[in-house]
Amino acid sequence: MPPTFFARAAGAARGRRAVLCVGLDPDPDRRPLPLRSRGPQASLGPFLRGIVRATRSVAAAYKLQLASYLAHGAAGLRALEQVRASLGDGVLTILDGKASDVPSTMRLLRRAAFDRWRFDAVTATPWMGWDGIEALAEDPARGVFVVAHSSNAGSADLQDPPGARRPAWLSVLEGVRRLARRRPNVGAVVGATYPAAVARARRILGPRIPILLPGVGAQGGDLGASVGEGIGSVPGSLWVSSSRSILYASDGPDWAEAARREAERLADAITAADRPRPAGGRPTRSGRSRSAR
Amino acid sequence: MPPTFFARAAGAARGRRAVLCVGLDPDPDRRPLPLRSRGPQASLGPFLRGIVRATRSVAAAYKLQLASYLAHGAAGLRALEQVRASLGDGVLTILDGKASDVPSTMRLLRRAAFDRWRFDAVTATPWMGWDGIEALAEDPARGVFVVAHSSNAGSADLQDPPGARRPAWLSVLEGVRRLARRRPNVGAVVGATYPAAVARARRILGPRIPILLPGVGAQGGDLGASVGEGIGSVPGSLWVSSSRSILYASDGPDWAEAARREAERLADAITAADRPRPAGGRPTRSGRSRSAR
Repeated sequence: MPPTFFARAAGAARGRRAVLCVGLDPDPDRRPLPLRSRGPQASLGPFLRGIVRATRSVAAAYKLQLASYLAHGAAGLRALEQVRASLGDGVLTILDGKASDVPSTMRLLRRAAFDRWRFDAVTATPWMGWDGIEALAEDPARGVFVVAHSSNAGSADLQDPPGARRPAWLSVLEGVRRLARRRPNVGAVVGATYPAAVARARRILGPRIPILLPGVGAQGGDLGASVGEGIGSVPGSLWVSSSRSILYASDGPDWAEAARREAERLADAITAADRPRPAGGRPTRSGRSRSAR
Repeated sequence: MPPTFFARAAGAARGRRAVLCVGLDPDPDRRPLPLRSRGPQASLGPFLRGIVRATRSVAAAYKLQLASYLAHGAAGLRALEQVRASLGDGVLTILDGKASDVPSTMRLLRRAAFDRWRFDAVTATPWMGWDGIEALAEDPARGVFVVAHSSNAGSADLQDPPGARRPAWLSVLEGVRRLARRRPNVGAVVGATYPAAVARARRILGPRIPILLPGVGAQGGDLGASVGEGIGSVPGSLWVSSSRSILYASDGPDWAEAARREAERLADAITAADRPRPAGGRPTRSGRSRSAR
């Protein structure tokens, strides 16, 4: 039997419990000055190859946001295919498409993401129900990160609606935990903006289920606190994702070097936040329990 | 000022309150026998052009499910671009991608769907919050159909969770109504499987906000009952979508002719279910109020 996604994630993390995921989510309107003589589409390849070369030594994963490529049409999707192919197999690759549909459609997305493009994992949102998520997660070797709690201003609208008996995102985390018992390839997305929510997510998920943590860097999440709260007990338990702060660390001729420095800075901060914790217990850096909402 | 999406939908409906939307959602594993000598990708164009030619006289809209094209990779997206271009401007075009993300990412999807591909509307799911939906719906001439209640087995998991004080999908419909007051381009997706849910949706939305009603045909929705309950008071208030029952009406050499017959049958059934209703009142065909759940 091939290794499960959890095992493969642990392998890609090389012994570290919390690791850096670089978000290859290019803004179609932004590119470094030296690439501006080329068109927006033509510059995608050189830009992303440069970012990958510069960050490869510290990135355990790359996340490609589907929308960034769709914005360029079919040519953008060709760029996505080329970037994915250039990443090879030594690093975890995540397609960030926030998939959400009925099972038959999720099977088509699984086919695109896993069979055709060979991504190791995808993101999904749960609104359409767990049957769709299960259809997407059918191959135990390929991961599905389900968005439980996002970082945007409107995140509470559905995830934590006013007047509800209990935040809906907690039920989603319980659903992830339930599913992960049978399927060692289902994790959760929890935004980094609210460390207390991250702590609550880790408590519900237990120490082993992986969390993908976006919103670090440009979105202003408190990296140290969120990593400390979100880390589990096993390698590859926390995937800390940053996009814009790395991609656009500099717009000048030093863009690749600046991306490298920012990625290294984030990787160091993640390592620093990963303090040893007693077996099964809370991290030593935080004595008291926090609770979101 | 260019006409709003509501006005454009009314125009495409040509005076009818309920109209047929043909779903161009090809299954990569299925194609009519005469096209099987070509590969799955190469047959996409001829197949879909044939379906469009055969159904054009009765379809007020075409819905293209993004996943069906992504399953073929960049070549599939090229096919989507060609199909979209071939549809022109006389018919409503909907990109069914169930978009769901933070505002900055939704703006990229808006760019792809509306600026690049010139779709008239897209579908979205609400889990990530209303700020993302608003970002997607920024252009009043382009529509956004928000999935409130779907037809799949797992639809209740998040949309109507056990133990909740109130089904979440009702709040989503209220959100759509609120948004549609300011933005004459936001409608709802309500699955056809539960006519009582469709009736409740129409009551919440009022008589003018458009509903996209998938799940008719292959998914087994009760067309007559759902159309009767879902219809509003204005042209273009109900978009009844069917995919597989039309696309795969026959696998033989008569596939295009069979698709035409099935589309005509559905269009007739929709017209038959659209009975006059007293101004502002309930449809005359249904005397009593029904309630979902």
